[in-house]
Amino acid sequence: MHSSLPSNLPRSQDGFHWTPQEGLQPGLPSLGVITPETEIKQARQTHDVIVVGAGYAGLSAARNAAKSGLSVLLLEARDRIGGRTWSSNIEGYPYELGGTWIHWGQPHTFREIYHYGMKPDLEVSQDHSRGVNRFDLITPDGTKSMSHKEEDALLESAVRKFIDVDGVLAREVMPFPHTPNANPDIAKYDKLSMADRIDQIKDDLTPSELAALEGFVLLCSGGKANNTGFYDIVRWWALGFYSYQGILDTCVTYKLRGGQSSFARRFFEEAKATGNLSYAFRSPISRINSRDNGVQVIAANGKQFTASRLICTIPLNVLGTIQFDPPLAPAKQQAISIGQINQCSKVHAEVRNPELRSWSGIAPSNKLVYAFGDGTTPRGNTHIVAFGADVNPLHPEEDVAVTKQSFTDLVPMDIQRVVFHNWSKDPYAQGAWCMFEPGVGTTYLDALRARHGNVLFANSDWATGWRGFIDGAIEEGSRAAVMAQEELGTAKPVSHRL
Amino acid sequence: MHSSLPSNLPRSQDGFHWTPQEGLQPGLPSLGVITPETEIKQARQTHDVIVVGAGYAGLSAARNAAKSGLSVLLLEARDRIGGRTWSSNIEGYPYELGGTWIHWGQPHTFREIYHYGMKPDLEVSQDHSRGVNRFDLITPDGTKSMSHKEEDALLESAVRKFIDVDGVLAREVMPFPHTPNANPDIAKYDKLSMADRIDQIKDDLTPSELAALEGFVLLCSGGKANNTGFYDIVRWWALGFYSYQGILDTCVTYKLRGGQSSFARRFFEEAKATGNLSYAFRSPISRINSRDNGVQVIAANGKQFTASRLICTIPLNVLGTIQFDPPLAPAKQQAISIGQINQCSKVHAEVRNPELRSWSGIAPSNKLVYAFGDGTTPRGNTHIVAFGADVNPLHPEEDVAVTKQSFTDLVPMDIQRVVFHNWSKDPYAQGAWCMFEPGVGTTYLDALRARHGNVLFANSDWATGWRGFIDGAIEEGSRAAVMAQEELGTAKPVSHRL
Repeated sequence: MHSSLPSNLPRSQDGFHWTPQEGLQPGLPSLGVITPETEIKQARQTHDVIVVGAGYAGLSAARNAAKSGLSVLLLEARDRIGGRTWSSNIEGYPYELGGTWIHWGQPHTFREIYHYGMKPDLEVSQDHSRGVNRFDLITPDGTKSMSHKEEDALLESAVRKFIDVDGVLAREVMPFPHTPNANPDIAKYDKLSMADRIDQIKDDLTPSELAALEGFVLLCSGGKANNTGFYDIVRWWALGFYSYQGILDTCVTYKLRGGQSSFARRFFEEAKATGNLSYAFRSPISRINSRDNGVQVIAANGKQFTASRLICTIPLNVLGTIQFDPPLAPAKQQAISIGQINQCSKVHAEVRNPELRSWSGIAPSNKLVYAFGDGTTPRGNTHIVAFGADVNPLHPEEDVAVTKQSFTDLVPMDIQRVVFHNWSKDPYAQGAWCMFEPGVGTTYLDALRARHGNVLFANSDWATGWRGFIDGAIEEGSRAAVMAQEELGTAKPVSHRL
Repeated sequence: MHSSLPSNLPRSQDGFHWTPQEGLQPGLPSLGVITPETEIKQARQTHDVIVVGAGYAGLSAARNAAKSGLSVLLLEARDRIGGRTWSSNIEGYPYELGGTWIHWGQPHTFREIYHYGMKPDLEVSQDHSRGVNRFDLITPDGTKSMSHKEEDALLESAVRKFIDVDGVLAREVMPFPHTPNANPDIAKYDKLSMADRIDQIKDDLTPSELAALEGFVLLCSGGKANNTGFYDIVRWWALGFYSYQGILDTCVTYKLRGGQSSFARRFFEEAKATGNLSYAFRSPISRINSRDNGVQVIAANGKQFTASRLICTIPLNVLGTIQFDPPLAPAKQQAISIGQINQCSKVHAEVRNPELRSWSGIAPSNKLVYAFGDGTTPRGNTHIVAFGADVNPLHPEEDVAVTKQSFTDLVPMDIQRVVFHNWSKDPYAQGAWCMFEPGVGTTYLDALRARHGNVLFANSDWATGWRGFIDGAIEEGSRAAVMAQEELGTAKPVSHRL
């Protein structure tokens, strides 16, 4: 254990940590690391359900299936739960390496927050009560500073112009955000990229609106202007109660005091407490065979497991690395070969600048396009969270000097610690939260959701509601568990149109 | 079955129906009526859990407990499920007698909508695409007509002035709407009545803003200006994403095509399918005894039932009719004697005026203070839904001429049918959705939520989130079921801070 990483927690191989004293070190301590890594009851025997992947989709599926009395084997490639959402506690402070913010308007998530009694754990990222209390719009022409009220007005104006293709702020385009393709004309809007849409409205935007909009939309997408589907930005808008404030509230405001891994852990512990859960971490798989009487999965180390059903929660961008027999349907294969476009780089800095607690910035031409004060560490330092996008990719571990420069190009700061997980280079993620290029959301959603024999697919990447969010993962895991329960006889059918 | 009530559905004793041909008739057909009314397995034997009340709280509690393997006896005073939420299908068209609108920002509800595959059943009440497309503000000085866009602007301006006691539109007063008393200063705001708050801002309101605000707030409260707590209106605002549009979206926009009873029925059927549910409808109870080893309940007909735990979902205003032994704690008794103040009168009219499909009106001095076009019936008529408040009480069955006049005082219409349920005169409701007078929400919420020996209390009237809504009922039923499961050993503790 490094001196700069004081923690009683076991350490994941995932993530990176840099301090001036220690330099760059791989691995981070986390509540999400499971020890011992394997606990398989009734070895060699078949299970009712194998769940592949222990992110929120897999955890929800495994927990619900185990609670209904099914025997479950959970296989996870990593040494930890949480998938693209996990937190590392460093000096008692949680850094969120992936998914972070939740909101009571995310129904699957908030039902779980109630279930686990975690409402008192909610806290607000932003604190505008102290420090510079300022927003900087940073472009090659220089930095324009303004109040957060002005920031909100600027972005609200720009985002409304961007969204308003139907004169009713997308309520016609997407009248039911949890049924995103309900409008039969939706494919028309799904042809547009973010760049196409900006092109349509650019004469209506001030230079500041354009720069702020580019930064904001790149924050949402983690991609590029020309491969980010306009449809997916409309989706966030509709899910965010058709308002800019709603997007802020739902996507970058409320987080968990103990970190996301404290939440994920509850799912795992509840599943374990049923007595019906076996699990093996550090167990990547290579092959899934669907047979008439069940499924067979072959791990990378050659071990084989069988079950009546398999719930595959492997992310879209990773599915292509798994061999399926029989082969997947052509539409699913096409969707997998297209993938999703989010290569966001999320990086945390602990900085000796208490005044930045109330700072935020957008810099569409920088390697980090969006950043803000996200907390105060136990040392009294400010925690800055920052996001880059694929348009100007940052792989923070490749050159820490470049990474630090990407922060200080935003605003001067004295960096004492950098923490991150490179999702692009992670073989089990190959990207961040799901964002589609134009056409994919309307063409391939059903194919991605379709079963393959006795294999069910559950991942936030093809959720119908909060796709790409924690909420979508829980939605999907719950859907798959109900299907397995109904088919294996522990529940009577209740859901006729899932 | 009356000719004007063609329906294959069994008929509840609840509700009233009027047509020019048949006059006033009690009783309405509903999917929520359960036949046969009793099915008790293992007669005389004790159950794990008795659930008293089959509204959404009781249905959620009974279903979750039964799914976890507990034997459940559900006792309901009425002949139907749903409590203060039920629908009557008349000529294939669902009239919602009580709770109606739901939204994806209501987490407990929408999780169930997903669970039952009912997302495609969502529809929008308002249709501004045809007809007069007009809002009327009706006061003793006359009627002021305007567009719906102007209606929204008027109400948004008025409601924002009403809410904005902290300069940040109540985000400081109520930063976490699902933890409504999180702000230690909340009691200060809970001293104010709606009338007090209007008094503070009346110099800032135009006459139209004042009239619109009075009508809107009376719609929310169903009470009077001087007994409606300002706190409870702030609560709706905060739950509605701190915006007027959010209140509209969450409270009066999205409903279920098949009616609420089609939703409630799913809970009941799923509970029944477990094989663990016994039930008796038309079984009001008179007494609940909590003993060291369990509970005993005595029905009004003298029958006795015993169980290890009892989940009491009787509404606040009815709890005083039940004898508890030992007596309830003093704080709970005080809260019961104060009760909740909503005596809303909700009345439906089917009218021969297709042009009113896009009409809405507010009339703060009328017996019906708020009304709008809510649907088109199979005959091509318009369905108008209207709400009265206790300030000017309307008991629609007492004099149908007065009831009809209350509609035609709003706007001329040719009334062909009137449908309603008088919640004030209903012995098992004694009021509509829960609204508190000043001070009650901050003083008595914990007392109302507290258990009494082996009796657990679950009702939307003391939910922490969407109190008074369907969502709060599901929240509460789920909470009680988890407690019963943990105490009776079918689940390990997961919720440490409920």
